[in-house]
Amino acid sequence: MKKINIGLIGFGNVGSGVVKILRERKSFLCEKIGLEIEIKKICDKDTASRRNVSIDHKLLTKEARDVINDPQIDIIVELIGGIHPAKEYIAESLKKGKNVVTANKALLAEEGKELFALARDRGKNIYFEASVCAGIPIIKSLREGLVANRFSSIFGIVNGTSNFILSQMSGNDCEFSHALKKARAEGFAEKDPTLDIEGMDSAHKLILLVYLCFGRMVSMEDIFIEGVSRISLADVNYAKELGLEIKLLAIAKKEAGELEVRVHPTMIPSKHLLASVNGIFNAIYVSSDLAGDLLFYGPGAGQLSAASGVVSDLVDAAHNIQAGLFKPTLNIGLDKSIRKLRKIDEIESRYYIRFMAVDRPGVLAKVSSVLSRFGISIASVTQKERRRSKIVPIVMVIHGAKEKNLRLALESIDRLDSIKEKSVAIRIEEV
Amino acid sequence: MKKINIGLIGFGNVGSGVVKILRERKSFLCEKIGLEIEIKKICDKDTASRRNVSIDHKLLTKEARDVINDPQIDIIVELIGGIHPAKEYIAESLKKGKNVVTANKALLAEEGKELFALARDRGKNIYFEASVCAGIPIIKSLREGLVANRFSSIFGIVNGTSNFILSQMSGNDCEFSHALKKARAEGFAEKDPTLDIEGMDSAHKLILLVYLCFGRMVSMEDIFIEGVSRISLADVNYAKELGLEIKLLAIAKKEAGELEVRVHPTMIPSKHLLASVNGIFNAIYVSSDLAGDLLFYGPGAGQLSAASGVVSDLVDAAHNIQAGLFKPTLNIGLDKSIRKLRKIDEIESRYYIRFMAVDRPGVLAKVSSVLSRFGISIASVTQKERRRSKIVPIVMVIHGAKEKNLRLALESIDRLDSIKEKSVAIRIEEV
Repeated sequence: MKKINIGLIGFGNVGSGVVKILRERKSFLCEKIGLEIEIKKICDKDTASRRNVSIDHKLLTKEARDVINDPQIDIIVELIGGIHPAKEYIAESLKKGKNVVTANKALLAEEGKELFALARDRGKNIYFEASVCAGIPIIKSLREGLVANRFSSIFGIVNGTSNFILSQMSGNDCEFSHALKKARAEGFAEKDPTLDIEGMDSAHKLILLVYLCFGRMVSMEDIFIEGVSRISLADVNYAKELGLEIKLLAIAKKEAGELEVRVHPTMIPSKHLLASVNGIFNAIYVSSDLAGDLLFYGPGAGQLSAASGVVSDLVDAAHNIQAGLFKPTLNIGLDKSIRKLRKIDEIESRYYIRFMAVDRPGVLAKVSSVLSRFGISIASVTQKERRRSKIVPIVMVIHGAKEKNLRLALESIDRLDSIKEKSVAIRIEEV
Repeated sequence: MKKINIGLIGFGNVGSGVVKILRERKSFLCEKIGLEIEIKKICDKDTASRRNVSIDHKLLTKEARDVINDPQIDIIVELIGGIHPAKEYIAESLKKGKNVVTANKALLAEEGKELFALARDRGKNIYFEASVCAGIPIIKSLREGLVANRFSSIFGIVNGTSNFILSQMSGNDCEFSHALKKARAEGFAEKDPTLDIEGMDSAHKLILLVYLCFGRMVSMEDIFIEGVSRISLADVNYAKELGLEIKLLAIAKKEAGELEVRVHPTMIPSKHLLASVNGIFNAIYVSSDLAGDLLFYGPGAGQLSAASGVVSDLVDAAHNIQAGLFKPTLNIGLDKSIRKLRKIDEIESRYYIRFMAVDRPGVLAKVSSVLSRFGISIASVTQKERRRSKIVPIVMVIHGAKEKNLRLALESIDRLDSIKEKSVAIRIEEV
């Protein structure tokens, strides 16, 4: 049986999961794929700590070049994360004629353009299934399963931490801070959860999804990003009364030749499948022109789930190497119907708005008149329960309005005497 | 650019969709995949009728052998459906050294063992993405994306007609016959809907899913099959009161070395994602040991959706041919932990049961005593509204019981004087 040698850079959580699978399922995989995938070298700064898998210590090295320069190694698996030196390791590996498997979404999102171009130049591939939603085969599905399709939109719940927090708030009636504490206690939030809760991690994944669906690499600056940290329990509950659920969505939408790319808390109908995606689960809802609306759902993180994605890439890479197959395009096609990216100011959306107003006659008239001045029309309005403080929440749903107009209107409204807190605005998507 | 020639047998609904895509997206596909897929010949009994795509009439033939025997053709696409002569065409194509793409679930479910073995012998592949859930890339996901996983269960809503009917009953409060009428009016049910509503179509798809997940081809006789035609609106509504929804599920479950394979109306918790899969949509919920619980959702039928699946197979086949890649195993592994198939009598399940009883004291005592005699314990019981006829429905949920015991108990209960109709039993799955 033909043997494909691989080298691993990064023997942490996912790395040891990959080693575990390749070792413990060796014969299962060999029988299935008709090839043997052999771990030739493993690099990690820490070669001393125990992992949950036993390996021959001779495989270990602290020096990445030992792996990259080994002429017997066909595939380099990069699992150290971060931009540097991961980028350099991948670039050097490609230059040495090796194919690369990585789960490094931040790196590909930020430096992918350069790395994908380099791979193409060298006739090699970068495989990255585990970089988006771990073991959910979303990348393979978009690249291969849906190869004939054109896409019109992507709505993704792609950050487990944020989704866990929002699910806790909604399901257990607790405030953000309490939900975050719970996420930490359960190991679903990092010590510094900023990347997750402020939407950057979702934006990284969105960049890769947009690349797969529309053939272009957008940059972080192109994406409007807003996280979940300012979502209050009150809004979660008012949304529910309106038949809506709040989710942090990574959104890409094509409309009239323009592409919108954004990450923000979004209200969606409670009946939509995405509204039932709870806890650390991820889901991606894509609209394609042939295969229709599709949803891919599963755990978006976890050692073995991510390792499952990495191993599927390894199998593909190994098969392609065995066949001498050269797939420089990665089955990715440029959507030429997109003329430009739409700036956030130009995006039109329905909104949920909450004003905190003094409870006296005439406030609603003032607020409405400002909205109307900016051409914004109200779909529904409810004044919520009175509080002792005489400050009452007014919840409004407005019809489609341009982001810019809404922003200006809210600035104007927030200057009114009778408005006592910064108004809250959350976008509503029909999905 | 390398050209791969294909021949199409069957120029009906899906066939013309495939031709449409290959023609209208020629350059889009070429750029994406680095290959040209050229339609060399098209066979259909009817070469006269117009399709929604214009083609060169010289491509058309009424004789399948013109396609199969053409030495320039690399891939045969079989889209005529049915067992004969589709089986013979595929077998001849494989013997002629051609790869085959088909959407013919009935054929593969019933004759797949022989055809897959023939393909393996000849070093060729049969691709069949569109045979299960049309354009949802479930086959690719199970075979390739989840290649490293072992599976413990599959729960599939894989028949759009049945799901449409059940959704109508549940959503519009109508009886089966009315819902079927609606399905017919909307083009979602065939003139003779038996295959769909009696579960055979679901069983065909289950056979293929079981093959992909567990590596063995079960036969139709191995599967317990019950359709949706006897579901009454009353049970749909009583289920709702219990927080349950009725779906026609194709189920494969591994337990203690035994595999259960069955298709039947099933009550599942209303909060489960599968309960929100409505209308003609399909969804497959699989439990894997590495990537966890996954759901794949989308339209399960439709010309372009099925054609999307066929074209993705064509691209894979074309890439593999270009590379000379020989993948006889289809990435399918035998799950050796399965010792045998579990007979339906041995299956243990929770049940919803409805008895139609005379409204007089002592009936419940009699019923309970029969159940207890068979070792069946009751989880909850509700007597529903009285009717003028003095026959009242008693709705029970029972704890896990063996199918055989339940059947015997119900036979015994149905012989009681006070029971006036055949009792209804519907399995409940926790999923």
